[in-house]
Amino acid sequence: MSSTFTMIGGEGPNSYRQHSKYQGALVEAAKEKINEAISTKLNIDLTSKLANIADFGCSTGPNTFFAIQTILDAVENKYQQDIEFQVFFNDSSNNDFNSLFKTLPPTRKYFATGVPGSFFGRVLPRNTLHVGVSSFSIHFVSMIPKEFKNRDSPLWNKDIYCTGFSKKIEKLYLDQYKIDMEIFLNARAQELMSSGLLLLLGGCLPNGVKMSETVNGMMTDIIGSSLSEIAKKGIIDQKRLDTFKLPVYFAQVDVLKQIIEDNGCFTIEVFEKISHANGEYPLDHEYLTLSFKATVGGSVASQFGQDAMEKTYELVKKKTQEKLPQIAKAKPGFQYLIVLRKN
Amino acid sequence: MSSTFTMIGGEGPNSYRQHSKYQGALVEAAKEKINEAISTKLNIDLTSKLANIADFGCSTGPNTFFAIQTILDAVENKYQQDIEFQVFFNDSSNNDFNSLFKTLPPTRKYFATGVPGSFFGRVLPRNTLHVGVSSFSIHFVSMIPKEFKNRDSPLWNKDIYCTGFSKKIEKLYLDQYKIDMEIFLNARAQELMSSGLLLLLGGCLPNGVKMSETVNGMMTDIIGSSLSEIAKKGIIDQKRLDTFKLPVYFAQVDVLKQIIEDNGCFTIEVFEKISHANGEYPLDHEYLTLSFKATVGGSVASQFGQDAMEKTYELVKKKTQEKLPQIAKAKPGFQYLIVLRKN
Repeated sequence: MSSTFTMIGGEGPNSYRQHSKYQGALVEAAKEKINEAISTKLNIDLTSKLANIADFGCSTGPNTFFAIQTILDAVENKYQQDIEFQVFFNDSSNNDFNSLFKTLPPTRKYFATGVPGSFFGRVLPRNTLHVGVSSFSIHFVSMIPKEFKNRDSPLWNKDIYCTGFSKKIEKLYLDQYKIDMEIFLNARAQELMSSGLLLLLGGCLPNGVKMSETVNGMMTDIIGSSLSEIAKKGIIDQKRLDTFKLPVYFAQVDVLKQIIEDNGCFTIEVFEKISHANGEYPLDHEYLTLSFKATVGGSVASQFGQDAMEKTYELVKKKTQEKLPQIAKAKPGFQYLIVLRKN
Repeated sequence: MSSTFTMIGGEGPNSYRQHSKYQGALVEAAKEKINEAISTKLNIDLTSKLANIADFGCSTGPNTFFAIQTILDAVENKYQQDIEFQVFFNDSSNNDFNSLFKTLPPTRKYFATGVPGSFFGRVLPRNTLHVGVSSFSIHFVSMIPKEFKNRDSPLWNKDIYCTGFSKKIEKLYLDQYKIDMEIFLNARAQELMSSGLLLLLGGCLPNGVKMSETVNGMMTDIIGSSLSEIAKKGIIDQKRLDTFKLPVYFAQVDVLKQIIEDNGCFTIEVFEKISHANGEYPLDHEYLTLSFKATVGGSVASQFGQDAMEKTYELVKKKTQEKLPQIAKAKPGFQYLIVLRKN
């Protein structure tokens, strides 16, 4: 039942590499705060003159390169020593590591390595990591409960993700999310050295806001209804669509905070809302369609084929244009920088 | 002027993965000796409970997985402790790491990482590696002197590699080889921990034997003459062929030994000829053609295109069949296991 969800690789017109500026802008906006956190909160043993940095869920760049460089500069600035850096780029083994490796910054001052494997589990040896980062990845769940995919189940979820309208479904998604976050945090706690830092960047929901009230939710609903139309036209199989669910759950701020506190492996050093010019998506149906193609399109293509994916996204573009007035009234999300120190 | 030389990736009918049994057989035959070397010569600090193992020039498997497992078993057997293993699979950034990652042994007991970058230079942090291995890779040179590629130069080399007929060319190849081996050994010496081991497996020439007298040499000559015919037919550009040289140099046993001794970073613990059933290529033109397609074909295809490569290898097959009587009389090569301990 495990889900894999991989960004579109390569450097082509649909690639995550070309359409992840939205995600990249958050790291850019958080840069000063990351600097400050590393400068004041990082307290690690560097007698080996080696600092290990990892990005969990790195995809194909360039955002990961920017995030890594930001951390590296901050560590170098703080310790002012002759240290070497080893960087671990982690993502699932379906990720396009070939593209990642070919586009590594030529002037980088670190030893680059790729680490294939799900971050819902250990991917690095224990006590070896100084600083970890994970951007736009802790809203994933590792699997979707079977009953959501079964039309005959009372828990059948008609949407392709968790909109938050059904309390029962919401609860089961949250239960799964808690399990996964626990696994994620425990794995990172084992990999990090004592007092190592884990930086989390991404989006969640403000307290009291439903997924379906945000741009993220509205766009995913548009993708869902486009897929339904495509199925009605017979281009894709309705039964297959019934079982197609995005493995994502956006928690509300206080829920996310509570999960981290309950886990107990880390001290929350920073939990801040990051505001930036690019914080909300621009009201542009082309931009929105391409952004959600780069992130969700790969999953649609691997389930239903490249051709059906392209047809779906033609519809998505049309529907997005029609819904721009509603999208304009969407409630803002909550973009965060969380800095955790291993206890 | 740097040369890249990458095995054919993927799992297709031409892939290195499918046609590297010859190379794999050497590791298999050397298994007992590797065990013994690690058991008696490895003397490393494992207080961190972590052993780092690297394969330099790993290509896409499965040989690298077998080599790594052999080393890992030997280390585990020797130390009998609760240690974790991190494995660094290194090859140039053109290597098909996506295939490598997708075919990792599912039951592996190590944390796998890919390390893109030329092994003619540092690819890992200093003092972090316990055991390194490199199979069939130290016969590469990092570049081919410009004058060999220029038809008007007195040092013009008509062959696509170093046959050993011209003393002047031989000397210049050897000079380059010495420079590259020095770079290779220095880089590994920095990466290895004190008393770490470097295992080298591959083929070289027995003392007094010329490259052109071995199967390797004969096959490369056949590829060269096939390319010439293809050029004469106008399928590929003669001028382009004039500059096409394989970046390989097979040293004679005593020369290789001397280079390692002169470098001075390592103590030679083992330098042995490995004899095995598969030691010499079988006298089969299909097998020979496919073997040299998996290794040299990628280079030919990247220079002249896939179509010209296929046409060339049709000719190679024909010529190999015709030359089987001569190939039968080829002088045997020298397949080695070298175990070096960092001083």
